[in-house]
Amino acid sequence: MSTSTAEIDAFLNRGRLLSDGIPWPDIEEAREAAATDPEVDWFGFWMARSDRYAELGECALADSHRISAGELLWLGSLTAHYAQYMWFHDHVRRELGQRRKVELFNQAAPHLKPPAERVEIDLEGATIPGFLRLPESGGDGPAPCCVLIGGLESTKEESHRFENLCLERGLATFAFDGAGQGEMFFDVKLGPDFERYSSAVLDELERRPEIDSGRVGVLGRSLGGHYAPKSAACDDRFAACCAWGACFDLSDLDSMPPRTRAGFHYATGIDDPEHATEHLLASLDLAPVAERISCPTLVVHGRHDVIFGPEQVEKFRRGVTGADIEIQVEEDGDHCCHNMGHIVRPRMADWLADRLGSSR
Amino acid sequence: MSTSTAEIDAFLNRGRLLSDGIPWPDIEEAREAAATDPEVDWFGFWMARSDRYAELGECALADSHRISAGELLWLGSLTAHYAQYMWFHDHVRRELGQRRKVELFNQAAPHLKPPAERVEIDLEGATIPGFLRLPESGGDGPAPCCVLIGGLESTKEESHRFENLCLERGLATFAFDGAGQGEMFFDVKLGPDFERYSSAVLDELERRPEIDSGRVGVLGRSLGGHYAPKSAACDDRFAACCAWGACFDLSDLDSMPPRTRAGFHYATGIDDPEHATEHLLASLDLAPVAERISCPTLVVHGRHDVIFGPEQVEKFRRGVTGADIEIQVEEDGDHCCHNMGHIVRPRMADWLADRLGSSR
Repeated sequence: MSTSTAEIDAFLNRGRLLSDGIPWPDIEEAREAAATDPEVDWFGFWMARSDRYAELGECALADSHRISAGELLWLGSLTAHYAQYMWFHDHVRRELGQRRKVELFNQAAPHLKPPAERVEIDLEGATIPGFLRLPESGGDGPAPCCVLIGGLESTKEESHRFENLCLERGLATFAFDGAGQGEMFFDVKLGPDFERYSSAVLDELERRPEIDSGRVGVLGRSLGGHYAPKSAACDDRFAACCAWGACFDLSDLDSMPPRTRAGFHYATGIDDPEHATEHLLASLDLAPVAERISCPTLVVHGRHDVIFGPEQVEKFRRGVTGADIEIQVEEDGDHCCHNMGHIVRPRMADWLADRLGSSR
Repeated sequence: MSTSTAEIDAFLNRGRLLSDGIPWPDIEEAREAAATDPEVDWFGFWMARSDRYAELGECALADSHRISAGELLWLGSLTAHYAQYMWFHDHVRRELGQRRKVELFNQAAPHLKPPAERVEIDLEGATIPGFLRLPESGGDGPAPCCVLIGGLESTKEESHRFENLCLERGLATFAFDGAGQGEMFFDVKLGPDFERYSSAVLDELERRPEIDSGRVGVLGRSLGGHYAPKSAACDDRFAACCAWGACFDLSDLDSMPPRTRAGFHYATGIDDPEHATEHLLASLDLAPVAERISCPTLVVHGRHDVIFGPEQVEKFRRGVTGADIEIQVEEDGDHCCHNMGHIVRPRMADWLADRLGSSR
């Protein structure tokens, strides 16, 4: 399948990739590969990078260089993530990339600084996979925590850098895959009840003595900018909510880039596009619950977002009537303001730390 | 002055800038500015960025967001650094940029994580400015330390990200400007005795109870790849030495890019180019002292370095006869392997941590 310039920009979005931690030389080499070969095999390119980082990570581990090992194995995981990224037309490779991403993140987890503890939560026969990280210099007593939710194509492994911003500000983090996302996709597809997954995570955090369950917030990125407010609306134990990208409903589905629309259909597991669309529109709508959000809420949105249009922001403004809501629309921002990550990401972490009362 | 493609690549070397911490959007906008205006005013471009980061940093400070404030003020310092970078033809603006860089770094220092303590060391009427940072999780007792030396156009403010790699591996860091560098340039020009400055730093570190003076290493970058081994050769208290870029002598001066050669001349403070060249060749030569290096030594070099040629590496191989020397030449590496910083930089920090016996 040949790749258009728009698709290259979607596959190799420098702002997103660099902010999430993909090294610049890999992105440039991928772009050079695309320039010389319009039939470039993204999957093969990124999986080869992944293997290389995995090998370097294992060498670092053999030399007892744990910090480097953690970073390198995580880079192996992240590059495998981008191998399968938007690879909806080839389920076999998609699954290969997902599995490799998960495997390498599991290897990296104990060596990350601070380490990530894998936590598996049962929910009616399915397993919610997540990672808990605790701040190194928090002060005494249980830590406030931010639950991190990915989107359509971002999963728990990709939040590592954002977790670091929370952790250094004294917040614990719990990133997980819910229905239709990452590891869970294979068992449970996208549905109307994402809040059940985040509430199950909150139940687990309440059992954790390291966590102050009265100070747990929730942040969601991209489609997670729907899931996080949905979670807060349906569970008033959440003490703060951040939508990193405004997704009130899916009314923009028809005007989205084709591959993003294909991704939404894919996540439902429904083959027939019309049925998939119906399912999406019915499943993803905050209108019935937005007024139930009662915790401080932040919406961060880019004016140039080509996935979620400006009307999504207005719907938040009108719909969230029962809570303090702060809306930050960046005039120069793209989808999730990935092109200004160095400004917007620390600011969201600061906002969460303020609302959850972590030590400064 | 119009700017050629080669000069744009020198001014806006993505590998170097991104590894050192300049945000990607700033680099891209600078490149766009150069593409639309061949007479682009780099100084004005980067100083405007610097002002913007300084303002954001002050806002963050007013909101008690200390971690963000430290990063933003440091970004203000770093962008001011790149404003005056290689700006040898305009001494007034050069000095303006230098002063602004220093001012903003001083503002950032107490808010960095871990904080940087400004230390001023007297040396025969001149003042060596440096910054000491201590690892947050080091274990008990005094910490091993790495002394960090910049090059012709890299100064103490630019080593922040590399310091972080050392600090998280349990090493304290002390970055300073010596003769001809950064702040010191205004008082003392490049000369034949850089080792006096690094030994004065070691004297200071010996007075510090937080530092284990028996475990102090030295790393120098670019021209610092000359100064660090010179320092180790002349002071056997250094327990490990890393040349980040091989600069045994200045025999490559004539074949260097013109602006780099201009920078070498500038650093001497000698107006006449012939005299400046003589001074440089006589001042910067390891041949008389290389055999006196007795501590473990690492040389990291890129095969595609256009400033220091491959013969520089061979001179290290032949000249350092009294110490364990490890030479890593990266086949794909450019000057200081900036284009593969994510691989090479953590590896140097690991090597130093191993040699200086920091906790893992």
